[in-house]
Amino acid sequence: MAGYTTYIELVRPFIAGKTVICTAMKKEIQRAGAAIDTALAGTSCAMVSSGDAGIYAMAGLVLELCRRRGITIAASDAGEIPPDALAVEVVPGIPALCAGAALLGAPLTHDFAVISLSDLLTPWEVIEKRLEAAAAADFVIVLYNPRSRRRHWQLEAACRIALRHRSPQTPTGIVSRAAREGQRVRIVPLSQLPAATVDMQTIVFIGNSTTFTYGDRMVTPRGYAGKYDTA
Amino acid sequence: MAGYTTYIELVRPFIAGKTVICTAMKKEIQRAGAAIDTALAGTSCAMVSSGDAGIYAMAGLVLELCRRRGITIAASDAGEIPPDALAVEVVPGIPALCAGAALLGAPLTHDFAVISLSDLLTPWEVIEKRLEAAAAADFVIVLYNPRSRRRHWQLEAACRIALRHRSPQTPTGIVSRAAREGQRVRIVPLSQLPAATVDMQTIVFIGNSTTFTYGDRMVTPRGYAGKYDTA
Repeated sequence: MAGYTTYIELVRPFIAGKTVICTAMKKEIQRAGAAIDTALAGTSCAMVSSGDAGIYAMAGLVLELCRRRGITIAASDAGEIPPDALAVEVVPGIPALCAGAALLGAPLTHDFAVISLSDLLTPWEVIEKRLEAAAAADFVIVLYNPRSRRRHWQLEAACRIALRHRSPQTPTGIVSRAAREGQRVRIVPLSQLPAATVDMQTIVFIGNSTTFTYGDRMVTPRGYAGKYDTA
Repeated sequence: MAGYTTYIELVRPFIAGKTVICTAMKKEIQRAGAAIDTALAGTSCAMVSSGDAGIYAMAGLVLELCRRRGITIAASDAGEIPPDALAVEVVPGIPALCAGAALLGAPLTHDFAVISLSDLLTPWEVIEKRLEAAAAADFVIVLYNPRSRRRHWQLEAACRIALRHRSPQTPTGIVSRAAREGQRVRIVPLSQLPAATVDMQTIVFIGNSTTFTYGDRMVTPRGYAGKYDTA
């Protein structure tokens, strides 16, 4: 069992008696490497992510490191694992974007784009280009890693780009710590997003041109509207 | 309990003794309406979708219909439900895009755009604009509803747009019936996508410019590559 400290604590009740490889944040490569070493030595090892392991999470890094080390991975449909191969299975989960969307109502009922604002591993120019493209083509936009102590200006920059294409009134959902202690859910007009309390454990949903609020929910219609009368 | 016939059959073992409102496809509005009527009459009613109820699924339609009927919905954090209000809760699930991605490896480790190719409820011009924007900005592209008997040319058109911006060799994952009977997983070069067997129960993942194949998997790197040497 390997994972970032916070996530290991979340699964602690289920891992009694298991060996735990636990490292702090920003030590992803060491942690994944240790998990691979453990598996190569003959002990099955589970690497834990929060949300879904495939969305901005560890599934990709584990596979990247295996390839870099020249490890042969067993085919997914291999009945028996060849002796020189490592079996790697990715188990899907409920991603933060679904947990957050459910709390907000139904913001993702139509096409959406998912963008991380972290420029630690991606040049800001690439992020900016994606924000512009997504805003111009009227995607609902889901922002991961919207702000941290060191990255304080990116969210405002993203907001400025969105405002070039959308109304300042566009419903914008802000979900912090979805389904965890300290959960907080808010819906604000897009123009008020930069002033909102947002951190690394927050995910932001910027509605498209048709997204509306209803009670304390945010809904992006699928386009059934024209069909009601004939229904 | 309300749902499309196929999904009701999937949960049949868990709903013994429950009243079931079950309708065929394309009767979404009637089905959601009947679920709302049931709840208004005082009986809790669960509406079942496959995957996640918020992604191209029924959560949005239920909320839309409630609003259209002038129903007051209870606030999510209301301790007690006011007598004139209806409590609506959206329960998140594992969306097809996560189930499919896990089977393919890790195609969604970086920014991605999700687009439905169904032009039943969305004009093709809007879909085309989104495909163009997503392809130009190097998003991984996830296609829902890629093809049906009546909609046979959309996938090829989407492919032509992607090929204006990506190499014909771009790894493209095709997952049919993820985690269900008849599951099928393939990775082909983008240029071969139009010839592939694809139907409404299929989801397509077009890699970005950095996506690679490794064994029988497809991986989009997060961008750790430059960090390996200092790790």
